[in-house]
Amino acid sequence: MLPANLPLYQQRVEQHLQQVLSQQPVTDSRLMQAMSYSLLLGGKRVRPFLVYSCGTMLGASLHDLDGPAAAIEALHSYSLIHDDLPAMDNDDLRRGKPTCHKAFDEATAILSGDALQTLAFEVLSSHPYQRVKADTILQMIQRLTSASGYAGMCGGQAIDLAQTNQSTTLEQLERMHRLKTGALIECAVQLAWLCSPSADTRECDNLLRFARALGLAFQVQDDILDIESDTVTLGKPQGSDTKANKSTYPALLGLENAKTKAQQLYQEALNALADLPYNTDELRAFAQYIIERRF
Amino acid sequence: MLPANLPLYQQRVEQHLQQVLSQQPVTDSRLMQAMSYSLLLGGKRVRPFLVYSCGTMLGASLHDLDGPAAAIEALHSYSLIHDDLPAMDNDDLRRGKPTCHKAFDEATAILSGDALQTLAFEVLSSHPYQRVKADTILQMIQRLTSASGYAGMCGGQAIDLAQTNQSTTLEQLERMHRLKTGALIECAVQLAWLCSPSADTRECDNLLRFARALGLAFQVQDDILDIESDTVTLGKPQGSDTKANKSTYPALLGLENAKTKAQQLYQEALNALADLPYNTDELRAFAQYIIERRF
Repeated sequence: MLPANLPLYQQRVEQHLQQVLSQQPVTDSRLMQAMSYSLLLGGKRVRPFLVYSCGTMLGASLHDLDGPAAAIEALHSYSLIHDDLPAMDNDDLRRGKPTCHKAFDEATAILSGDALQTLAFEVLSSHPYQRVKADTILQMIQRLTSASGYAGMCGGQAIDLAQTNQSTTLEQLERMHRLKTGALIECAVQLAWLCSPSADTRECDNLLRFARALGLAFQVQDDILDIESDTVTLGKPQGSDTKANKSTYPALLGLENAKTKAQQLYQEALNALADLPYNTDELRAFAQYIIERRF
Repeated sequence: MLPANLPLYQQRVEQHLQQVLSQQPVTDSRLMQAMSYSLLLGGKRVRPFLVYSCGTMLGASLHDLDGPAAAIEALHSYSLIHDDLPAMDNDDLRRGKPTCHKAFDEATAILSGDALQTLAFEVLSSHPYQRVKADTILQMIQRLTSASGYAGMCGGQAIDLAQTNQSTTLEQLERMHRLKTGALIECAVQLAWLCSPSADTRECDNLLRFARALGLAFQVQDDILDIESDTVTLGKPQGSDTKANKSTYPALLGLENAKTKAQQLYQEALNALADLPYNTDELRAFAQYIIERRF
């Protein structure tokens, strides 16, 4: 079942991103087209959902959360464009549509990714926050840099490329995913927490545990879907992991054990929420959606 | 003649960048090698020089200036790696050495550039400033984003690619350079100004006029050197602009008029400094160095 507010938050971040793009002064219109194409192509908007859902639960305003929600999605979007490039994963389809370098060209795709990364830091630093102070905004920027740079997402993608065609242990696979996708998912709840008026460190720890388990569950489910789903539903070629000779949870554990692993991580995520003194129904529903999704 | 402090500032930013890299937690060591290779390959360090020289002139401490100096060089370094890629300018040599994708591979070069962009914002936001307040640091980050993203450097590079093989007017050429390289050079003096204790808006305007003229003079001189110098001195193939069918000042104005244009811009830069109530000898010497350099 879809969490009740998911479509609302998807629409909200989409509108805010559209507005941010429309406020840019014109330089090269084709570059702007490519940026919009990739950024507004849809998608689950997992990271913005976490920002909005955790943030409102902790008492932050939707207005203030627009900044980190849009920033983290721009950051994620840049990473997808670059990961899809011929020199990287060489993917032709993303969300059922041609990838950026297929719809435009390689140079434009590289530049779009570059400019979307910059846009992430622009949005995060320039958003007209109402209740977030300058030193907290700085902390948000610091978190986003460590989650997405060499120590986080970029490092994870480098490890992923190095591990392709290599035999991998479960530990190595997990470390790669924690950096490549986990770091940004954890960052989403950290940004939400920083945006909130009554930021309690213990609550942040619980939310981080939740995000860590959720991020890995998401990845295990992705690996399962790559085997069990089909190209039309996925919006990208089914079986691409196997074809690219990438390590996956089903390959290392077997399909049934991978499913058990996903369920364990789902339970871990729910347990982390249990100690929070808030109504966590929405986050619980989201964890269920992540684990039960077919695409 | 070399400005007296140029080697000092070059060494200072180099050391600071080295230190910043060494403090990163290890993820993928090959990615770190590629980042270090590109970032510590030498170079004139024009932007850090401007940060240090303008900043100390305005009363900022070298310690505080280390942050923006290192950040802007990391940003510049990422842009060089991506501009050199086969899909972009397809250059094999940079500063006399193989470009990043030649020394490593394309995927690693794309990721190194990505991670160096993130590093720029990490350094700028996390530097242990002694006299710069959080809201000013935020302003520095905002300036760096607008100078380097779609509205600045990335937009300029897109225009450059679009203009290749096309007939271009002088106005279009100038607009492209102002975005592609000028924006970041102007940003260097803005960051220095923001770091300084007694930031006076009129002084910033004069420094911006200086940077604008200097940035363009640098580019005109670059175009002249591409014709008059040789590959060994340049550290990159002589005649590459002509070969790549790029518009240049000598191509549009003729070589002699291009030299006159460079001299006019040099004078403009000096005039902008004349009104400042500081000892501007170092900045004057730097402008002379830029216009007289052979590489």
